[in-house]
Amino acid sequence: MNLPMPSSAPLPPSANMSESRTSSLAHLLDWHVLDDAVWSEAIQRAVYHHEHAGRWTDAGRGRSIALMFFNPSLRTRTSMELAAAQLGAYSTTLTPGQGTWKFAFGKGQVMDGDEAEHIKEAIGVLSRYYDAIGVRVFASQTDYEQDRSDRLIHTIAESATVPIINLESAFFHPCQALADAATIHRRLEQPAGRKFVLTWAYHPKALPMAVPNSALLMAARLGMDVTVAHPRGFELDDGVLNLARSYTDNVRIVNDPDEAFEDADVIYAKAWAGSLVYSDPEREQALRSRHREWRVTAERMARTNDGVFMHCLPVRRNVVVDDSVIDSDRSIHLLQAEFRLHAQKAILEYVWNLR
Amino acid sequence: MNLPMPSSAPLPPSANMSESRTSSLAHLLDWHVLDDAVWSEAIQRAVYHHEHAGRWTDAGRGRSIALMFFNPSLRTRTSMELAAAQLGAYSTTLTPGQGTWKFAFGKGQVMDGDEAEHIKEAIGVLSRYYDAIGVRVFASQTDYEQDRSDRLIHTIAESATVPIINLESAFFHPCQALADAATIHRRLEQPAGRKFVLTWAYHPKALPMAVPNSALLMAARLGMDVTVAHPRGFELDDGVLNLARSYTDNVRIVNDPDEAFEDADVIYAKAWAGSLVYSDPEREQALRSRHREWRVTAERMARTNDGVFMHCLPVRRNVVVDDSVIDSDRSIHLLQAEFRLHAQKAILEYVWNLR
Amino acid sequence: MNLPMPSSAPLPPSANMSESRTSSLAHLLDWHVLDDAVWSEAIQRAVYHHEHAGRWTDAGRGRSIALMFFNPSLRTRTSMELAAAQLGAYSTTLTPGQGTWKFAFGKGQVMDGDEAEHIKEAIGVLSRYYDAIGVRVFASQTDYEQDRSDRLIHTIAESATVPIINLESAFFHPCQALADAATIHRRLEQPAGRKFVLTWAYHPKALPMAVPNSALLMAARLGMDVTVAHPRGFELDDGVLNLARSYTDNVRIVNDPDEAFEDADVIYAKAWAGSLVYSDPEREQALRSRHREWRVTAERMARTNDGVFMHCLPVRRNVVVDDSVIDSDRSIHLLQAEFRLHAQKAILEYVWNLR
Repeated sequence: MNLPMPSSAPLPPSANMSESRTSSLAHLLDWHVLDDAVWSEAIQRAVYHHEHAGRWTDAGRGRSIALMFFNPSLRTRTSMELAAAQLGAYSTTLTPGQGTWKFAFGKGQVMDGDEAEHIKEAIGVLSRYYDAIGVRVFASQTDYEQDRSDRLIHTIAESATVPIINLESAFFHPCQALADAATIHRRLEQPAGRKFVLTWAYHPKALPMAVPNSALLMAARLGMDVTVAHPRGFELDDGVLNLARSYTDNVRIVNDPDEAFEDADVIYAKAWAGSLVYSDPEREQALRSRHREWRVTAERMARTNDGVFMHCLPVRRNVVVDDSVIDSDRSIHLLQAEFRLHAQKAILEYVWNLR
Repeated sequence: MNLPMPSSAPLPPSANMSESRTSSLAHLLDWHVLDDAVWSEAIQRAVYHHEHAGRWTDAGRGRSIALMFFNPSLRTRTSMELAAAQLGAYSTTLTPGQGTWKFAFGKGQVMDGDEAEHIKEAIGVLSRYYDAIGVRVFASQTDYEQDRSDRLIHTIAESATVPIINLESAFFHPCQALADAATIHRRLEQPAGRKFVLTWAYHPKALPMAVPNSALLMAARLGMDVTVAHPRGFELDDGVLNLARSYTDNVRIVNDPDEAFEDADVIYAKAWAGSLVYSDPEREQALRSRHREWRVTAERMARTNDGVFMHCLPVRRNVVVDDSVIDSDRSIHLLQAEFRLHAQKAILEYVWNLR
Repeated sequence: MNLPMPSSAPLPPSANMSESRTSSLAHLLDWHVLDDAVWSEAIQRAVYHHEHAGRWTDAGRGRSIALMFFNPSLRTRTSMELAAAQLGAYSTTLTPGQGTWKFAFGKGQVMDGDEAEHIKEAIGVLSRYYDAIGVRVFASQTDYEQDRSDRLIHTIAESATVPIINLESAFFHPCQALADAATIHRRLEQPAGRKFVLTWAYHPKALPMAVPNSALLMAARLGMDVTVAHPRGFELDDGVLNLARSYTDNVRIVNDPDEAFEDADVIYAKAWAGSLVYSDPEREQALRSRHREWRVTAERMARTNDGVFMHCLPVRRNVVVDDSVIDSDRSIHLLQAEFRLHAQKAILEYVWNLR
């Protein structure tokens, strides 16, 4: 089977990463394509909402958002629902296939199979009811071109006449990235120049790359000194790496699980599948299984510059990170999760132009 | 197997179609049994809400509705939730069997099987909490007498001490019918005498008759010139046809997929199963499969009087209707879907007597 | 297999039943460990809310609660959602495994299996968003020590930094017990000394003991004259019985399905599994099947002192109770269910200190 594999050519961001720049709607598909002014203000607003945690307003009264989860969620769903509620807005949560129809995505598709409705109608209709639509739709892990171009969420955005908010797509997780940026900002105050390590971790399942892609771009855009650590065979997408390098010269890649921790200010751990998952999932699994020692341990944390531990959650204890690390006061994973709420209030303010 | 089949005798509406007329509660089980004054006012209110789309009020503050979906839903659920919210009311959505118990319906049933709770208790309890209960419960497609008498939703209504709103039952879909009537009213201004075509369409699954029944009655009650087009073997229920004919003399049946489109003002496409589904589902499927050419095409639309295309959704593209029709500006399916929201606000106003 | 079985030694309540007494948070894990003053006030508040049914306030505005159902629910979910709404608070409902991750509970667990997230993170995160967390987590029926010590809900409470409300755990159902106490109070005015019968009933499934445990403790604490009736082999836990006897001397056990009904003021029927379920489920099922005559019939009700019939619901008609009883005016099961709403408003007031 000859599946598309990552090319070495740099991807122009507006064409391959997102078309949101050219849209007149304030979609939030990929955080990194937003103007610097919007990006900075959103971080400031997330920090503001953290400082005013628990404040409920009527800023979004008379607004509504439909949250559509093609994949499971705990944090994203509960924090987005509450973000809307705290702004006085109404939300509803849908899990396609559980109490709703299954959707078809193909152009010109003859719909005589399982799917009862085309996403074009589903999104077209929801656009008539709700003032924004949040969508989670994970990577296929079978079609690399579809995943790296984030085809599904862009197809959805094309059918929408209200803002679409990406709640984690095949390649990006902007809500997480904004929360992470605000968490780091709050913790380090001046992130620029501080050492950020995105470290691969072993995981029994082949996970998608949306979070590591977004974390890398976020840290690079904050001007941090970025190290990406992973075993050979687990390289991130060239287009994403090139985009990160357009933000900062300081993007380094290492293949050693210990070396990266030296003097780190932030350890950001995340498991993801190697690109072999697209062509030979069994070999990818076998390759991954050889790297169980890529785990965040107290010994490795001792190499850091009193660094903090971050993880987007859900996290597998004693597989990705030891209890002794995540239960220590160096771990800021709960603060990071809390910032999801604050960041998403900032995102709702942005797409609804509430300020 | 000797299952009950449709009889030729006319069904007196109050006995077989609904008992809601005799109820002191403002149930909404079947729209067509409502008084002319209520029917007309509801259409006017739906049009009013369309003209004031996006307006949120406190008219329903302190009211609540439980929405119970025994079958999947996208539009009905999300539009009903928002209708309640826009009136200031609270709603919750239940999908029996997903996170709730399964319900028994039988009178005198010895409940030693799968079902943990009788619908009598479930509805009795919800009536103590909520100010209205919406229920979706599709046709059995195995028991024609049960389906045509809408036994399940009437059993539910008998246990309720608050209004029951039919969110699509075995035989009727009044929320859809009211939205359709308001859409046509908005589009054609004077629907009476204009040509309405309810055309059968091929579909890979055996679908119930609630929508075509309700569409037929709605158009007849609007005084339109009604044509029902379907292959032989896909006749609608005699009781429903007779009721339609009590509204207007102009109900014509044709068995040709082209003929009906001539000079039509409205093409309303819908797939439904033939009555054989009740006695011999395999033969019904085989018969249905011979009529794949019953599809709404651009060629057929060209025969109309600049007619509009309507469909209740979900619709299977390139099976029921070609992309070239549904993506053209003759298709008003999204406006029709939007009117679900406006119509259901009118329904909530009616059952709660908010005006 | 040598599973732990109930010991005969009395269980000191604060150690084995609950640790909530020692917590500074106003958890509601087991109602019976609350102070007399709190217990009495909660009953009074539930009665107050019944008297002011349908009143909506802003007492809980700016508060939020996440409701987490590891097991199905109809009444608890819909009444808790509405209780929050009627107080002006926001709620969201989660069903782990349906649209969310599966959770691990073990301390030091190496999470390389099915569960993607540890309950410690899940609850830690929700505590950062929501102002209370309701949890339903039924008995394992495989590990008696885990069930009788209510290990899972206490594990959850240990991870929480906001109040946890028990929506039915392995061994207790305090929301039900408070509603039951308020119902009895409302119905009998002076419950002390009146005859309360908790009668076992046959059921095709092995049900947990949370409701009978809580009903027994509730009636004993009200000072009622308590009879527990069940076949041999269906004894309640010794620790629970001893705690009940610490409230009142009048706790009697009978093994005859008729005897208990004599002169009863309240018949509280409930099915539960015998303790054999923990060591030999097949023998438990066989033993249970021999007691199908343990059913509440009109004949048995005739032996009572014009007694009322109560059941927590869901109830299997004509298996647990005959139609002739539950459909008679001696049955107060719907009033009892209604009191769930009122009782839970009292519980929210308690955990949020709203008064």
